[in-house]
Amino acid sequence: VTNLILCGGSGTRLWPLSRDRRPKQFLPLFEGKTLFEKTVLRNRSVADRVFIVAGAAQESLVRDSMADSPYELLIEPVGRNTAPAIALACLRLEPDELVLVTPSDHLVSKAGEYLRAVGRARELAAAGALVTFGIQPQYPETGYGYIEHNDESVVSFHEKPDEAKAREYCAAGHLWNSGMFLFKAGTLLDELERWSPEVMAACRAAGGRPTKAAMEAIPSISVDYAVFEKSGNVKVVTCDPGWSDVGSFDALSEYLPNRGGNASPEGPDPVFVNSENNFVISERRKVVLIDVEDLIVVDTADALLVVKKGSGQKVKAATDILRATDPGLMN
Amino acid sequence: VTNLILCGGSGTRLWPLSRDRRPKQFLPLFEGKTLFEKTVLRNRSVADRVFIVAGAAQESLVRDSMADSPYELLIEPVGRNTAPAIALACLRLEPDELVLVTPSDHLVSKAGEYLRAVGRARELAAAGALVTFGIQPQYPETGYGYIEHNDESVVSFHEKPDEAKAREYCAAGHLWNSGMFLFKAGTLLDELERWSPEVMAACRAAGGRPTKAAMEAIPSISVDYAVFEKSGNVKVVTCDPGWSDVGSFDALSEYLPNRGGNASPEGPDPVFVNSENNFVISERRKVVLIDVEDLIVVDTADALLVVKKGSGQKVKAATDILRATDPGLMN
Repeated sequence: VTNLILCGGSGTRLWPLSRDRRPKQFLPLFEGKTLFEKTVLRNRSVADRVFIVAGAAQESLVRDSMADSPYELLIEPVGRNTAPAIALACLRLEPDELVLVTPSDHLVSKAGEYLRAVGRARELAAAGALVTFGIQPQYPETGYGYIEHNDESVVSFHEKPDEAKAREYCAAGHLWNSGMFLFKAGTLLDELERWSPEVMAACRAAGGRPTKAAMEAIPSISVDYAVFEKSGNVKVVTCDPGWSDVGSFDALSEYLPNRGGNASPEGPDPVFVNSENNFVISERRKVVLIDVEDLIVVDTADALLVVKKGSGQKVKAATDILRATDPGLMN
Repeated sequence: VTNLILCGGSGTRLWPLSRDRRPKQFLPLFEGKTLFEKTVLRNRSVADRVFIVAGAAQESLVRDSMADSPYELLIEPVGRNTAPAIALACLRLEPDELVLVTPSDHLVSKAGEYLRAVGRARELAAAGALVTFGIQPQYPETGYGYIEHNDESVVSFHEKPDEAKAREYCAAGHLWNSGMFLFKAGTLLDELERWSPEVMAACRAAGGRPTKAAMEAIPSISVDYAVFEKSGNVKVVTCDPGWSDVGSFDALSEYLPNRGGNASPEGPDPVFVNSENNFVISERRKVVLIDVEDLIVVDTADALLVVKKGSGQKVKAATDILRATDPGLMN
């Protein structure tokens, strides 16, 4: 099995912690470890090899994180979403190689359940299926796609819903689309050829070490859309591995230890005066909260974020503004 | 007339802006001017001379602020409250000199009304009275003492009240005790001799340039308690000069221009996403607020304060903790 780690995400919803030069998966938030490192470690027991697809900006972060471990690396001069990233990697593998695709910026807290799910997915993939992992929803999240299923058969994929639809999906037993997959490299390439031949042709033309021009010639498209939503050869493994994409400070606050009230590993303890249920990440500065509650406070060297709990998704609205007014603060 | 400026206050309720090494009156918050400088300028038209009483820690700040202007300076090796500070200064003046006592850390926004009040106080003081300035209350503040009066006659002084009593005092027409006074130097010394002879004796013994030991031998007592609350020779001038002691961020937020949402003269404009009625002072860092309201956010190089509007007085609860746990943050 090859663990194919997709490393292209930027995670701007964790700004000001995450920046273009240090995206979410490279923040050492989890007892000194990054999500990238935890992904590598988690899959070490199920995969023999590591294959990393990353953007040019992430190359040095990847190399520092991997140190002396062996791995293959494919640098994308420009990102073209997940279908090209996966296809370009599969073109460099044997057709019978099993490929476990994992994003680099997700958390999995229940290792046993994760291994069970991967084991089952491996059986299905070895038999020739495209396997996706469907997560038992914990609540009606609007930030994920959903999978409608009948045991291991996929009925259909649903886009990110609004809140009413999300509740409906949860009630109907649909699953969160995790972005993790398992298949034989040859299966994926055959199916891509069949359902999105122009993507496949462009990837083949780009080759194993694509130039910028060759990458730009590849359509930007997700593997869900290019293959999984179209193929009849898809299976879903239902699981509940304590999964999170840590897509906002609300999610992060659920997973970080909060010793002394500061979730930053080395930051000073805040002072709370009549202030409950706040989440503080401060790398260096002393934070004092008085008569406030349900706030997320994120303090970094050059920027400070204060956001109401539950509104973590709106950080994107702020970073959209900052990209125009203060691009230096995104770096 | 000599303007006697009392410079001993520390203003910890404006922490983390104000520090032991730079107390409230030396913060350049008001279009680049400090409260100390505004005090000097305000009284320049009514006083011929300036006499400053300050702590040793403030000496260089006073000297920098006064630059080439002439003034007398009395440095207190240790502070002993207002009665000794005023008495020691008066001992260095002619008995007939009129002395306008003003704290260094108050704001006055209506210059015309202020000049009118000082003019009337001067007449009364020249006739031999101890004059205090009573401010028309704007709301039932619990942080000030109150003066019960009958026109210019004082009926009695009341300590800082609780909220119910403060409402009662306002309804009864009592005035805020401003801490500003006007009298002849000789009158003050005679009255202090009469009502607090042990204070007067200790001040006389300490002389014009008191040593630390001599200061420590003087009882620590306010001029209100040592003289004004006891003497029958007190008059009050009622006025409404747009006065504030800027004793908290709530008060400060009323008086600072808030261009672009940042009250710091040189700080960057914050980004507000669905956030109204917040008060931000950030010297350097970009502040982003999302889905929050009625917050005071004060960001400095080493400390960050977030406090609900209306709770500004509770900053003292935090600084009491910090003095024990992080004394460096008070400097």
